[in-house]
Amino acid sequence: MRQNPARRAALLDAAIEVLAREGARGLTFRAVDAEAAVPVGTATNYFSSRDELFMQVGLRFYERLEPDAGVLAAGLAGPRDRDRVTELMHDVVNRVSAFRSGYLALLELRLESTRRPALRELLSERIRADVDANIRYHEEAGLPGDATTVVLLYMALNWLILERLTLPDVFPEDGIHDLVTDVVERVLPGPGRSG
Amino acid sequence: MRQNPARRAALLDAAIEVLAREGARGLTFRAVDAEAAVPVGTATNYFSSRDELFMQVGLRFYERLEPDAGVLAAGLAGPRDRDRVTELMHDVVNRVSAFRSGYLALLELRLESTRRPALRELLSERIRADVDANIRYHEEAGLPGDATTVVLLYMALNWLILERLTLPDVFPEDGIHDLVTDVVERVLPGPGRSG
Repeated sequence: MRQNPARRAALLDAAIEVLAREGARGLTFRAVDAEAAVPVGTATNYFSSRDELFMQVGLRFYERLEPDAGVLAAGLAGPRDRDRVTELMHDVVNRVSAFRSGYLALLELRLESTRRPALRELLSERIRADVDANIRYHEEAGLPGDATTVVLLYMALNWLILERLTLPDVFPEDGIHDLVTDVVERVLPGPGRSG
Repeated sequence: MRQNPARRAALLDAAIEVLAREGARGLTFRAVDAEAAVPVGTATNYFSSRDELFMQVGLRFYERLEPDAGVLAAGLAGPRDRDRVTELMHDVVNRVSAFRSGYLALLELRLESTRRPALRELLSERIRADVDANIRYHEEAGLPGDATTVVLLYMALNWLILERLTLPDVFPEDGIHDLVTDVVERVLPGPGRSG
């Protein structure tokens, strides 16, 4: 069967919306077809099984959040100090939070992975690769801190995003910016650019 | 209708297992009855609606994790230094991780709360109360750090538990203990007991 890459991406984007809105059990081929407004039977032609669909959605999330080369290069212009880390962390928290359905879909996938070993293996590898890429970027850029710094930022800011997107009254929206700044300052004590 | 508190608790514990195993959509009165091995129709007599059942499960999670007064008092014996914070954090990470089905159920509830406003309100209040209680305990105990320290530990360690319970290959189990220690040392720099 001939596959159209743009249609395949559109089906995965539709699957993300279905997952976020209806949860893992709601993710059926038929629901994806309806969400993508394509004829019934289309998604079945693109994914061999529901397992395969779940896995491809996980990869699609990371594909959509991948910063382009320009953004990565811009992150390395100027001084490599704590203020730069703070800016990068604000950027990533805002970028990930703005893709709300994607983040909720990924949480659904995490929970679903406790029931699907192949999905668990794929997600573990993809997420570990993401953590490792963050560590490499941080170290190669000569930013302050080490691998543990990056892991600690990854953990704290992921939870902040989770809280923000599922229970936004726990940490009110108008305090999120300062909380991100505080996290970086606590994790990387010492002077920032002004010091 | 007469309600039996022990049976009510058993029904909520059954609901936690159903949620963790089958996800939010799988949480029906009938599934709870089956899990609790009680006659069909029992859960309906205890909870007025599925919304009510979801909310009571959220409260039950916190009820089961509440440390008893002895544990709280023991946490305050001895020096109030960073090593004490590290011990307390190891305790809480182990206690929460050991209640795997409860933690997975709470994640299901968080995602379900994006679809149920009453659940969202109740969970937000309960979780905020928990964060506030942790801050108060920390401050009243005279442990090092402040409210931001507690929030940062709450965020980082929650994500660590989430990763551990959903995708245990991202941070391998044999490194979890040291990672918790590292988190506390980064968040609270300066000498521990040995310093």
